[in-house]
Amino acid sequence: MKLLRVGPPGAERPAALDADGVLRDLAAVTPDVDGALLADDAALARVRAAVDGGGLPRLDPGGLRIGPPVGRVGKVVCIGLNYHDHARETGAAVPAEPIVFLKAADTVVGPDDPVLVPRGSTRTDWEVELAVVVGRTARYLETDAQARACVGGYAVAHDVSEREWQLERGGTWDKGKNCETFSPLGPWLVTPDEVPDPQALGLRLRVDGRLMQDGTTADQIFPVAEVLRYLSGFMVLRPGDVVLTGTPAGVAMGRPEPKPYLRPGHVVDLEIDGLGRQRQVLTAA
Amino acid sequence: MKLLRVGPPGAERPAALDADGVLRDLAAVTPDVDGALLADDAALARVRAAVDGGGLPRLDPGGLRIGPPVGRVGKVVCIGLNYHDHARETGAAVPAEPIVFLKAADTVVGPDDPVLVPRGSTRTDWEVELAVVVGRTARYLETDAQARACVGGYAVAHDVSEREWQLERGGTWDKGKNCETFSPLGPWLVTPDEVPDPQALGLRLRVDGRLMQDGTTADQIFPVAEVLRYLSGFMVLRPGDVVLTGTPAGVAMGRPEPKPYLRPGHVVDLEIDGLGRQRQVLTAA
Repeated sequence: MKLLRVGPPGAERPAALDADGVLRDLAAVTPDVDGALLADDAALARVRAAVDGGGLPRLDPGGLRIGPPVGRVGKVVCIGLNYHDHARETGAAVPAEPIVFLKAADTVVGPDDPVLVPRGSTRTDWEVELAVVVGRTARYLETDAQARACVGGYAVAHDVSEREWQLERGGTWDKGKNCETFSPLGPWLVTPDEVPDPQALGLRLRVDGRLMQDGTTADQIFPVAEVLRYLSGFMVLRPGDVVLTGTPAGVAMGRPEPKPYLRPGHVVDLEIDGLGRQRQVLTAA
Repeated sequence: MKLLRVGPPGAERPAALDADGVLRDLAAVTPDVDGALLADDAALARVRAAVDGGGLPRLDPGGLRIGPPVGRVGKVVCIGLNYHDHARETGAAVPAEPIVFLKAADTVVGPDDPVLVPRGSTRTDWEVELAVVVGRTARYLETDAQARACVGGYAVAHDVSEREWQLERGGTWDKGKNCETFSPLGPWLVTPDEVPDPQALGLRLRVDGRLMQDGTTADQIFPVAEVLRYLSGFMVLRPGDVVLTGTPAGVAMGRPEPKPYLRPGHVVDLEIDGLGRQRQVLTAA
């Protein structure tokens, strides 16, 4: 099932793509696509039956904004340097255990919303990532099977990053990760039944049409289930939380000088096999 | 004005302490104490008039749990090493600019709720901190006066920290800062009119009655207004966000071996001049 949210920022309505790719209005069967829905098997089954039944109103996608596919995101937990090829390009050693950082939930925007280049930024960089949306509370998980049972769905994410602020302004990475609009998410939340192997997904990112990242989640150092299990020993993951699982090689920071950092006017396209596409126009903050 | 929220976790109701220290029910005048209230001058004025008018129902404080004084906290942004004496005790240089990290909003609990020592933790540490609750959106602020206008209130916060996970497990500090229950907040949100100088507040923390931290916000390296102005260049601060402004000297990490880290059964008391007291019993997770 492909769930999404359409409409103006802060006033999105729940929707789904049916088996024929037709956009269907879910407002009659669920108040939102959010952690509460993902944690509720009966509600999810009602949504699925309604989508499969074909009786839901059609929505005209023309001119309709797509919002983030999860409402009321709790927290965004991110894994750094989680692809062998990306660790190599940054000159970093392969981490012995996952590197963890946070993005604030209010950085999450829709998949095609403008991304703002912050004032004073000269090193705004791109990162296509597989996002895992949490569907069950994860706390001190012991096995990968338990971790897999906590997945509510998958989505495309863009972990936009300001490298100077992330790495050269003292302290943790957070100054370069939490600028407004820095976490485009979507278009869809794809339920796990449609993603048989999250470790076999191609991810691609283009800037002005030029292919910059072309990786596969098979290259992840810590696969999705291990990441969730690991995180659950340090923090509670709750329905509606989002975990970004790292980016493959090809970011601007890893390229020869002059590094091609993002500037207003650039257009970035992201896609992950089966999870849809994003397109953002970079805009001055 | 001293605003608070009382009742079971997730079902707190808004309340206030009146001029005589009597607990008054605010449910008839505001749905909650949260960012929406703090950002709404007219609603705040109605609350103030109702509290001052004396006609609000009394609440019996006996047996009533106190929740966090802000509902639906957005994000918790923290400043590391922001007191001269704490920087000295940790052996760190005085930072040239604020060190920033995040705590997830779901770590926030009430001021007297149990604090859970995480499984496997041997270095759970305390940090009394002045919390600033944001009342106005702060984005690219230019002056300290603009920053002061964004303050919705002040509160006591406990930035509980697992030092091994913060410092020795790779990556950023977040693994040691985001364990469940690690951000007690309250008891009250005190509006700025009752805090004439946020840089002249004594902060104290006791463990099992022994005074461990005894500092003053006069020792902050970056004062409150400068912190808010600085942060607003990297991220948007929104009503209902919380900024923790660092801790003075006296944490367990800064003491001689064997360092007196927290264990289940310990009782921690925190207080800040004019902002009230917290008491937590440490409990095994």
